[in-house]
Amino acid sequence: MITAAVLLIGDELLSGRTQDLNLNYIAKRLVEHGIVLQECRMIPDVESMIIETVKTLSARNTYVFTTGGIGSTHDDITQASIAKVFGKPLITHPDALKLLEEYYGPQLNEARKRMACAAEGAILHARMVFQIKNVFVMAGIPKVMQEMFESILPTLKHDEPIQSVSVKAYVFENDIADELAALQASIPDVAIGSYPFDEDGKVKGVCLVARSRDATKLAAVKEQLQALVEEKIKITNK
Amino acid sequence: MITAAVLLIGDELLSGRTQDLNLNYIAKRLVEHGIVLQECRMIPDVESMIIETVKTLSARNTYVFTTGGIGSTHDDITQASIAKVFGKPLITHPDALKLLEEYYGPQLNEARKRMACAAEGAILHARMVFQIKNVFVMAGIPKVMQEMFESILPTLKHDEPIQSVSVKAYVFENDIADELAALQASIPDVAIGSYPFDEDGKVKGVCLVARSRDATKLAAVKEQLQALVEEKIKITNK
Repeated sequence: MITAAVLLIGDELLSGRTQDLNLNYIAKRLVEHGIVLQECRMIPDVESMIIETVKTLSARNTYVFTTGGIGSTHDDITQASIAKVFGKPLITHPDALKLLEEYYGPQLNEARKRMACAAEGAILHARMVFQIKNVFVMAGIPKVMQEMFESILPTLKHDEPIQSVSVKAYVFENDIADELAALQASIPDVAIGSYPFDEDGKVKGVCLVARSRDATKLAAVKEQLQALVEEKIKITNK
Repeated sequence: MITAAVLLIGDELLSGRTQDLNLNYIAKRLVEHGIVLQECRMIPDVESMIIETVKTLSARNTYVFTTGGIGSTHDDITQASIAKVFGKPLITHPDALKLLEEYYGPQLNEARKRMACAAEGAILHARMVFQIKNVFVMAGIPKVMQEMFESILPTLKHDEPIQSVSVKAYVFENDIADELAALQASIPDVAIGSYPFDEDGKVKGVCLVARSRDATKLAAVKEQLQALVEEKIKITNK
């Protein structure tokens, strides 16, 4: 199984100033590429927390994707912290520096040059994404992050896409819970999720979602879910 | 310092099916109440991960707020998992059961009764929020979660609100990074963040944000940030 973790870094996320949109984008793209997103963590720009978290997530997953903290200001400490995780000095990456020189010309000041800094041995991908071991370091601004992520996605190991089918119905999940549990028990290799939905702040029904890499199995499960829901509606209307 | 962690539980978050909105809501409200949000984690409906994560976050923080996995279907395992964290049996809470009986009347089936289950010794708050030690267990649906969170907020320890001031300018953070670092070094007790903003997908400027519990200090820092930015614009326009 190819697995991943996402690490969102930034005080602005934990203060509520910024609504994160990066996790959802990455999650959707990973599903399409068959990579299983195991967990996501959101931490402030604090060196000790970045070090501890990257260490843990890197050891547990095929890939780790970080966002945030890679600019040139005092609060951008992601690259330096990740270098410490792997016991490497922070150096100016020569190819990255060349790209910055070409892009900025005479406007390349010391602050901008810091954007070429990464752990010694880091691999430079397109769009200035640095890879240190299995950790990919990206920006926090969603549009920039998306460009960066798309540039590294083709370089990752892929698997069969994880597909899903869903059945939405104006039925309360409480009223089908037992039947649903029985169905889930009969097909342990397809994960069924039950998600109540609300309209105007009141729970009105449920969306049943089945997920698997096997499209044939999913089609069969969808029929079973539909039958289950229709049976309940018939009984309720009697 | 009063601290908190948020734990978002649900396969649908990690599959990208659902964009989380709960963290941002909780984060904003905690700031207003002077509670420092240390971190947020997002994990699937997997017992071993819920147990490990709740154990860690509960030991490190004054409060832990969980969302998701408290319905009545097979994938709702949050309460049972948290009971295991604290070595308690999962029991039907008598007061919670009474509330469900009053609410549902003859429609109270076995599945609905499961919503009254929590770790032995759990405290029942308004809106059916269970508190086990320092862990508050809430629903995943944003409107329901918000009602639950508001009902427990007055019961928490508070501190002076963490306030912020911000200065937005069409200046690149790279061009003020050194001056900003010097300013930050001179006032270590006020946290300054630098957040580039984009328009039409291109970085156009920066938003500087200072955060502190001391409004007088913040007002002074805001003036310094404004002066710093205006000086840079003056030089650029020369």
